[in-house]
Amino acid sequence: MATVPLLSDAEAESRPDVALVFADIRETRGSPFVNNFWRALAAADPDELARVWADVKRVMTEPGTLDPLTRELVYIAVSATNGCAYCAHSHTAAARAKGMSVAQHGELLRILALAARTNQIANALQVPIDPQFER
Amino acid sequence: MATVPLLSDAEAESRPDVALVFADIRETRGSPFVNNFWRALAAADPDELARVWADVKRVMTEPGTLDPLTRELVYIAVSATNGCAYCAHSHTAAARAKGMSVAQHGELLRILALAARTNQIANALQVPIDPQFER
Amino acid sequence: MATVPLLSDAEAESRPDVALVFADIRETRGSPFVNNFWRALAAADPDELARVWADVKRVMTEPGTLDPLTRELVYIAVSATNGCAYCAHSHTAAARAKGMSVAQHGELLRILALAARTNQIANALQVPIDPQFER
Amino acid sequence: MATVPLLSDAEAESRPDVALVFADIRETRGSPFVNNFWRALAAADPDELARVWADVKRVMTEPGTLDPLTRELVYIAVSATNGCAYCAHSHTAAARAKGMSVAQHGELLRILALAARTNQIANALQVPIDPQFER
Amino acid sequence: MATVPLLSDAEAESRPDVALVFADIRETRGSPFVNNFWRALAAADPDELARVWADVKRVMTEPGTLDPLTRELVYIAVSATNGCAYCAHSHTAAARAKGMSVAQHGELLRILALAARTNQIANALQVPIDPQFER
Amino acid sequence: MATVPLLSDAEAESRPDVALVFADIRETRGSPFVNNFWRALAAADPDELARVWADVKRVMTEPGTLDPLTRELVYIAVSATNGCAYCAHSHTAAARAKGMSVAQHGELLRILALAARTNQIANALQVPIDPQFER
Repeated sequence: MATVPLLSDAEAESRPDVALVFADIRETRGSPFVNNFWRALAAADPDELARVWADVKRVMTEPGTLDPLTRELVYIAVSATNGCAYCAHSHTAAARAKGMSVAQHGELLRILALAARTNQIANALQVPIDPQFER
Repeated sequence: MATVPLLSDAEAESRPDVALVFADIRETRGSPFVNNFWRALAAADPDELARVWADVKRVMTEPGTLDPLTRELVYIAVSATNGCAYCAHSHTAAARAKGMSVAQHGELLRILALAARTNQIANALQVPIDPQFER
Repeated sequence: MATVPLLSDAEAESRPDVALVFADIRETRGSPFVNNFWRALAAADPDELARVWADVKRVMTEPGTLDPLTRELVYIAVSATNGCAYCAHSHTAAARAKGMSVAQHGELLRILALAARTNQIANALQVPIDPQFER
Repeated sequence: MATVPLLSDAEAESRPDVALVFADIRETRGSPFVNNFWRALAAADPDELARVWADVKRVMTEPGTLDPLTRELVYIAVSATNGCAYCAHSHTAAARAKGMSVAQHGELLRILALAARTNQIANALQVPIDPQFER
Repeated sequence: MATVPLLSDAEAESRPDVALVFADIRETRGSPFVNNFWRALAAADPDELARVWADVKRVMTEPGTLDPLTRELVYIAVSATNGCAYCAHSHTAAARAKGMSVAQHGELLRILALAARTNQIANALQVPIDPQFER
Repeated sequence: MATVPLLSDAEAESRPDVALVFADIRETRGSPFVNNFWRALAAADPDELARVWADVKRVMTEPGTLDPLTRELVYIAVSATNGCAYCAHSHTAAARAKGMSVAQHGELLRILALAARTNQIANALQVPIDPQFER
């Protein structure tokens, strides 16, 4: 259960600002599916819904120097490290939809686990930053 | 300052197991530089030094389905999320050494910031996981 | 499921120290409801139960310079950032009970999301602290 | 040191988009001081600079149902919990500038420490969420 | 649900490398039970399965200067602090299997809660490290 | 630098409540050294100072079923996982003062690193909790 209700499609239709965002999510993704994150945010703060969706659309789909799958791998990395269950699920699904293979998922896991391991050591030992890393 | 001393090159030479790892770090990277992480770990736990280095070398340099730069971007993502100062510095430097452009760094930052933003919303609203994300 | 059993009212009655705390929770809140956090802690460590409850009661209900709702908003902020599902639920409910409006909840979410976003950027860039912030 | 250079005022002047943001920061705050966070972000990703500043300005200064000081207290809560050194410094300074008294700071600290304490217990015991908290 | 399928015993039998690890888990623990962590990792990355299990077996069961129960208490401490629900459950069960008493669990909880409380204060106040702590 | 001033011994003497706590810290530890954590907390919130010190003294020094060194190892585990630089330093020093050997420190590091590694995998894969772990 969420700490807020999830806005249904019927409820969304009676709110033009929300309906517009839901329609854009569907069009951008080419699918009728609007996942719970947007339904919860629509219920909690409809103004923010439009802003967060615009940010997600811009950062994750606009042309740039990182390909769409790499962007999802980075998203999974943050989500796993934050222990965000919802985000780990939704962005692993998104990465698969963008072509992540089983082998790539396995390699991603290895890097995630290695980084967690060395982060922990560096934090426990409080290693001083080498001057060579200075930009 | 670290919570342990940092092993100098002179001290490393008197410990054959550590000297071997330092030599492999230098050879693998093609540089005489051995950064403080390894010097601190060598002082704290020489046995673990060899194992962690072997893991880093394998996961970050062995051929695979993710290119070397993508691996570093994921590493930065974990390190920033964990708030590991040392790791953010060392892996940003590593990503640059592997060709990360200013534009790519900027795009990475946007994804990191967006993921942190939506993770926080999902955790605050405790959004229930959609059945569609089930594998 | 919890990693410990949850103490029932029947079990609490046979333990005078626990019964006293449960009675004080009910009286302080003007409700017969004792939530699972206290039932789990009662099972795990009855001595600590009394201390933690005394601390919650003191910090959250004693007169002070921050009003009761502001205190709950801060509590939600910590809980969301820690990704504590139980705490996000219980303190969002508590904030509502203390008068948090839908608009206030929405504004809180915006600040939580913004802070997570800028925290992530500051940690990724390792921004040095300005001398002007020195106290 | 940061993982990126910090943009100086001289450099900012030669970049009209950055100069515009810096000028708006100064005007909004009524002070010539532009703190390092913005200088680092300007160097790393000038496009994002404008967006993040617009978000900070909107969320933290626009009229709403939470007063400016409450907003800063929530910001400090997220920053302390994330262990973001820069953010703890800058937002504690901001809270003082917005009137936070020593007594209010002390009360904030108590809530932060209490929330961390009970979050840890709830996470260690994995307390199941009470149906009563369901919205 | 997991973000990957869980490998069944039937599926494990058709993969000799996985079957070998599952057999070693059963033999090491003297129990036919193979918990979901290994089934998920086997599905996601069979190569990593063998490496992670070897690391767990080595670190948690090899003779050393810390007794097996102390090792599990430290494991619980990390898992609770990371908010890892699965890990809190599995390692609390493991600690009980290695003899953790109710009293010891209670004392562990007190230390976990105290450390979270003082960590939060130190991070909020950004206390400078005393030179006396320098090694 | 801290976000608050650090109370000097001279200032502490003019505040009887603080002076009492500082004297008890010195007596309990058999040393004239009062570390910065207490000086910062004394400046920020003298009332809380007495409570937090009483909690630290009780949890860390009262007789119980966990020996003093085990308590410090758990404290380090929480502090490293939270990335609390001050706490990692102060509790590593405390563990050494209570007899932690280099070998024990090395073993602790291995467990910390292993737990971080498997926590990350469990969070990334969102492994469902086995019914066998239910208490």
